[in-house]
Amino acid sequence: MTHHYDQRRRLAGDALAAPKVRALVVSSAANIRYLSGFTGSNGLMLLLPERVVLFTDPRYELQAASETAERPLADARGSVGIRAATVRERSHSPVEVRTERGSLLLAAAKWIGNKRLRRIGYEKNNISHQAFLALEDALPGSARLTPIASLVETLRMVKSPSEIDLIRRSVQTNSEAFSQTLALVRPGVTEIDLAAELEYRMRRLGAEKPAFDSIVACGRRSAFPHASPTRNVLAKRGLLLIDMGAMRDGYASDMTRMAFLGRPSAKVRTLYKAVLEAQLAALAAVRDGVTAESIDRTARRVLRAPGLDRAFVHAPGHGRGLEIHEMPKLGKGDQTPLRAGMAVTVEPGVYLQELGGIRIEDTVAVTRTGCEVLTATPKELVVI
Amino acid sequence: MTHHYDQRRRLAGDALAAPKVRALVVSSAANIRYLSGFTGSNGLMLLLPERVVLFTDPRYELQAASETAERPLADARGSVGIRAATVRERSHSPVEVRTERGSLLLAAAKWIGNKRLRRIGYEKNNISHQAFLALEDALPGSARLTPIASLVETLRMVKSPSEIDLIRRSVQTNSEAFSQTLALVRPGVTEIDLAAELEYRMRRLGAEKPAFDSIVACGRRSAFPHASPTRNVLAKRGLLLIDMGAMRDGYASDMTRMAFLGRPSAKVRTLYKAVLEAQLAALAAVRDGVTAESIDRTARRVLRAPGLDRAFVHAPGHGRGLEIHEMPKLGKGDQTPLRAGMAVTVEPGVYLQELGGIRIEDTVAVTRTGCEVLTATPKELVVI
Repeated sequence: MTHHYDQRRRLAGDALAAPKVRALVVSSAANIRYLSGFTGSNGLMLLLPERVVLFTDPRYELQAASETAERPLADARGSVGIRAATVRERSHSPVEVRTERGSLLLAAAKWIGNKRLRRIGYEKNNISHQAFLALEDALPGSARLTPIASLVETLRMVKSPSEIDLIRRSVQTNSEAFSQTLALVRPGVTEIDLAAELEYRMRRLGAEKPAFDSIVACGRRSAFPHASPTRNVLAKRGLLLIDMGAMRDGYASDMTRMAFLGRPSAKVRTLYKAVLEAQLAALAAVRDGVTAESIDRTARRVLRAPGLDRAFVHAPGHGRGLEIHEMPKLGKGDQTPLRAGMAVTVEPGVYLQELGGIRIEDTVAVTRTGCEVLTATPKELVVI
Repeated sequence: MTHHYDQRRRLAGDALAAPKVRALVVSSAANIRYLSGFTGSNGLMLLLPERVVLFTDPRYELQAASETAERPLADARGSVGIRAATVRERSHSPVEVRTERGSLLLAAAKWIGNKRLRRIGYEKNNISHQAFLALEDALPGSARLTPIASLVETLRMVKSPSEIDLIRRSVQTNSEAFSQTLALVRPGVTEIDLAAELEYRMRRLGAEKPAFDSIVACGRRSAFPHASPTRNVLAKRGLLLIDMGAMRDGYASDMTRMAFLGRPSAKVRTLYKAVLEAQLAALAAVRDGVTAESIDRTARRVLRAPGLDRAFVHAPGHGRGLEIHEMPKLGKGDQTPLRAGMAVTVEPGVYLQELGGIRIEDTVAVTRTGCEVLTATPKELVVI
C-alpha cells in the first residue's frame, strides 16, 4: 500500500501559490497525518513548497521519526516499529522532525523568524483563537498572517484508489461486526450490551476504534438522531436503530441500519419504505458533476409526498476519510460539485417523537457515472 | 446522584463579574455539559448571571430538552428518556433550549443583538479562530468581545463529592477491566487483541467508551509514550505497557501498569524500581496547598540520582474529569495550588530507545492532608 505522502506534500505545496503564502502553519491533526503519516496527538507542521517541518514533543520523538520515514506504513497493520526509521530512504521532500519541550507554536514562529519568511498562512478553521493570538504575538513584525480555509481539506476530498481501498476495508470491518452482532439482538439485552459487542467485534476484525460514539437506540429513543446507548433493555416489540462506524488504518466508515423486534405495524413499514425510497433516490442521484446540495433536494423531494420532509432534520450525508465528518456536506448551501473519488455517506432519516426514528445509511464512493455503494450490508428492515 | 447544575450555573454566572462581561459565549462541549447536562456534539451556550440559553440543532431537540430538565440524570445509567422532559421542575435558572437549523453562532449573535447586550465574553481557548471571526462579524456594532480564559475550567478543577464518586466508579471500572484482561496476557496475543479485550470489558462493566485511545505496547514499542496498539504479537520475553482509562457517566479515569513476560533482567528491575520510587514520592507530595509544578520537581529529583531524569519526557500528571486532560498540569510552569477535591493523575515514566518504556500511573483525589489514591490496582511489576 503506497501512501504517496511525498506527492501529497507537493500538491499541497503547489496550492500555496494561489493565496500567495510562503508557508502554511498546518494545525489539524488529520491534515498532518495526510501529509506525513504522523499520527501523534501533538503536532504542528510548517508546509513550504519545497520542504516540510514537523514539530512535536519528546513523547513522540521516536514515533514521528518512524511514521514519517518514507516507507513506514508498507504494512499498515503493524510494522510501525523503531526499525523503520533506520531504513529511511531520501526523497524529494522528507519530513524534518523537530521535537520541542515547550510550545510547538512558539518553536514554529521562531523557525519562521530565522528563515525570514514573510507571508504566512494559517488554517483558520483548525486553530483555536488563543493559539492564533499566541502565533501572532510570537512572529516577528515582518511576518504577516493570512487566513487560509480548507487548503488541505480540499485536497483530501478526492481520495486516491489506495484510500478508497482503505475505506472499503473499514466499511467491510463495520459490516462484518454488525452482522455478527445482529445474531445477539433479542428482547432483554441492553443498548450498551449491543454497543459493546459491535465495538469489540470491530476491534477484533482490525479496527483501531469506533469511528464515532456508536448509536444504539431502541423504541422511542431512536427519535434522538444521536442517542448514546443506555442500560435500557430492548422491549419485546419496537424499533432498534444502530449507527456505527469503524476507524481502520486511519480511515472511517459509517453505516446505519434498522431492526424491529416483534411484528412492525403498518405505520412503521410505511415509514421505513419512505426512508428507503429517499435513500435509494439519493444514491441514484450521486455522480461526478452534481452539486452536494442536490442530493439533499432529491432526498427531501421523496419525503415530501408522504409529509415527512419536516421530520428529516439533518443533511443526508457528508464526506468521510481520515475524519468522520469531512467536506463536502450533502446539504443545503454546499455547492461543491461531487467528483469521482469522493467518499460520502448517504443517510436520510425521519424522526417522530411518538414513534421513534428511522435512518438508513451507506458509505459510497463517487464515480464518473454514479457511485459505488461500498456498504454491502442488506438494507431491508430486519424483523427479529 | 445530584448534579447541581443550577448551582454551577450560579457560580459561573457570578464569575462573570470580575471580567465585567454581561454574557459568556460557552463553546466547549465539556463546559456546556458541566453547566447543563447536555451531551450533544453540537451546542453553544450563552451564560448570563441570571439565565442561560442553549442553542443546538434539530437532531438534538428532544435530547436537549430531556438532558437539561432539572432531574434527568437521577439515574445516570439509563433514564435519559423522553419521559424525563415531561416531569421537568422549575428552578432558579432553567436552561432555555433553542434549536436552530442554521449556524448556532449566528443565532447566538442575533439573540445578543436583540437583548442589546454590550460586553460579551468568549472562551478564547475553546473557539476556533474562524468561529471567532464569524461571531465578531455577526454581532452588532454596539457589542464588544472580551477574551476569557478558562472561566468554567477553573470551576471544574475542584470536583464536588458526587463528581469524585463518579470518578471513583470510572477508576473501578478501569481497574476491573484491567484485572480481567491481565489473565489473557501471554506470548502470541497481539497488542490489538489486548486493547480490544480491555475496551470490551470496560464497556460491559458500564463505561460509555475508553477515555482515550488505549495504549498497549510490547517490547521496545513501549518506548513510544503514546503508542497505538498494533498487530505485533507479544514475545516470550519483554516489557508490556498498558495505559488505559474509562469514560463512565461522563467522567474519565486513567491508569498505567507494566508487565514483563518472562524473567526480567536486573536492568529492567532497577528501572522499574526507580520509576515506582518516583511515583510514590510524587504521590506523597500531593496535598492541598502545594503547587502543581512541585510534583514534577519531586518526581524528577528521584529520577535524577540514577540519571534517568532526561528519559522522563513528559509532565508527571494532569487534572481529569469530564475531559481526560484538564487543569492543572502537574508540570513545570504550572503554579496552580493543588486544592482538596481536585482529581489528578500521577504518572512518571522513563523511555529508553534500546529497552522500552516504563510508566506507572494512578488517578488520585487531592485531600486537605494528602491524597486518596483512587486506583486500587496493585503496582508491582507483573511478571508473566
